[in-house]
Amino acid sequence: MSFTVKILGCGSALPTLHRNATAQIVSHNNQIFLVDCAETTQVLMRRQSVRIGALNHIFISHLHGDHFFGLFGLLSTLDLSGRKGEVYLHCPPRLQQMLESQYSPVLVHELGYTLNYVPLSPDGVSLTLETKHLEVYSFPLNHRIPCWGFIFREKPLPLNIIKECIPRYNLTIAEIVAIKNGSDLTLEDGTVIPNSELTIEPPKPKSYAFVTDTTKLDSVVEAVRGVDVLYHEATYDNSYERRASETFHCTAGQAATVARDAGVGKLVIGHYSGRYESVGLLEKQAREIFPNTTAAEDGMVFEV
Amino acid sequence: MSFTVKILGCGSALPTLHRNATAQIVSHNNQIFLVDCAETTQVLMRRQSVRIGALNHIFISHLHGDHFFGLFGLLSTLDLSGRKGEVYLHCPPRLQQMLESQYSPVLVHELGYTLNYVPLSPDGVSLTLETKHLEVYSFPLNHRIPCWGFIFREKPLPLNIIKECIPRYNLTIAEIVAIKNGSDLTLEDGTVIPNSELTIEPPKPKSYAFVTDTTKLDSVVEAVRGVDVLYHEATYDNSYERRASETFHCTAGQAATVARDAGVGKLVIGHYSGRYESVGLLEKQAREIFPNTTAAEDGMVFEV
Repeated sequence: MSFTVKILGCGSALPTLHRNATAQIVSHNNQIFLVDCAETTQVLMRRQSVRIGALNHIFISHLHGDHFFGLFGLLSTLDLSGRKGEVYLHCPPRLQQMLESQYSPVLVHELGYTLNYVPLSPDGVSLTLETKHLEVYSFPLNHRIPCWGFIFREKPLPLNIIKECIPRYNLTIAEIVAIKNGSDLTLEDGTVIPNSELTIEPPKPKSYAFVTDTTKLDSVVEAVRGVDVLYHEATYDNSYERRASETFHCTAGQAATVARDAGVGKLVIGHYSGRYESVGLLEKQAREIFPNTTAAEDGMVFEV
Repeated sequence: MSFTVKILGCGSALPTLHRNATAQIVSHNNQIFLVDCAETTQVLMRRQSVRIGALNHIFISHLHGDHFFGLFGLLSTLDLSGRKGEVYLHCPPRLQQMLESQYSPVLVHELGYTLNYVPLSPDGVSLTLETKHLEVYSFPLNHRIPCWGFIFREKPLPLNIIKECIPRYNLTIAEIVAIKNGSDLTLEDGTVIPNSELTIEPPKPKSYAFVTDTTKLDSVVEAVRGVDVLYHEATYDNSYERRASETFHCTAGQAATVARDAGVGKLVIGHYSGRYESVGLLEKQAREIFPNTTAAEDGMVFEV
């Protein structure tokens, strides 16, 4: 199944000429998920042909403007575009209070669709969404205000049946389902065909983790252990380690250390301070610790 | 004195690929004023080299998202850019309640500068700002929610003294000031030099009016009578007059009728519905009633 991430923005608080603030589209098997929603997200979605109408789940990491100021426009545009049904906001509890306050910028009770809130849990790694093929977990980070990371995990697929076996043994639907779930096959004459001769292993489930904004955390290492791709903030180069700590952010080296210690497949860094026009230095510093690192840029799409 | 308007966005509720929602920079004699602040305004200001730090006065017509959703990001960016001192928001009273609510998207009490609110008056044409060279008035429009138009009027300049007169009559500073204010000059021998021989008329004061979103109003005709440039919404072409009325907007023909009846110098139309990729039809329909019409496009700058 296809599983990709599109970077709409990978800048930080101050938008620059070349980078928007944080927003990403996680696409899995024709479903799309929006992770963070900085100002201009809806415009970038439109420009990059992301179908706004196909969006059912929005994940907001925390309530700093560079991660959610685009939400008001997006929620309004969904309504103006004739959206019906339900939209789910997986978000800090305070966002629900903000949107339902009498002074909310968007009058959510007037929207043509239902906005459902899924408050993020303060307690460790917690399931926030389960779909047919995917589970999404949140986990707390350490920032100036409550902040969460997310993991998108494919569910294990059933075994793949070897096609030739179906006519060879004249399999019924019930037998096929049982074999895909691991059963052996007993023929009419009592012969047992072991499952391993009837099936091949399905592709290994893939996983993607999104971690920004935070200091370097051991709990993140545990939460994202073994994911295929980790997007981790690297707001500063290594010479700003003290400033990173003071502002509850990470350096490139710290992001790479988390990736290495968690044994992830690939690291993508982002959330760069506005001081960096080029982020080659940050990518270089991260690669010294974790070679399979890519520095995100706006518009980039990568496979999980 | 220079007096220009830069269109940052002239679209309406749904942002399109080519048009942002409403925001304009009025520049007068090195001062800049922001009129409406749709999402992405701060990014457009940066891209178009408008000095965000020079902004002291922001005018918000009404609290529909396509006119103010960029304000949260702009107010935050002013703070992150080290802004000190005072910023004035000339706005619907509800915006103050929104920003000062405990669930405000921006925590205004944490900003490094002081945000002053100037609530717009519901009573006719009202002075909302007076600077050394300019007066800005607001006046109520007729939309689904409270909405205001604005007029930027240059103050009359004093008379210009004819330079050669200064050495010829050995004028003192006090005499120059008196002459610029209209006094005649009495020489030591009692001869009176009439003011008209000492001065020339200053340039006529110029004025700019901003009118969106509204139905066609006689009170607007009175408010904007004789302005040099009128920006008036023309959300629809003439065939949508009924829809314009139902949604509290105007057609191109209605905008042009206001311009003609008010005897303005030039009409600029904008706030186009997202259905128009090209607005040639709207411009044509307006010119049939008021020939000196220009259809705004994003990025356009015009002299007042």
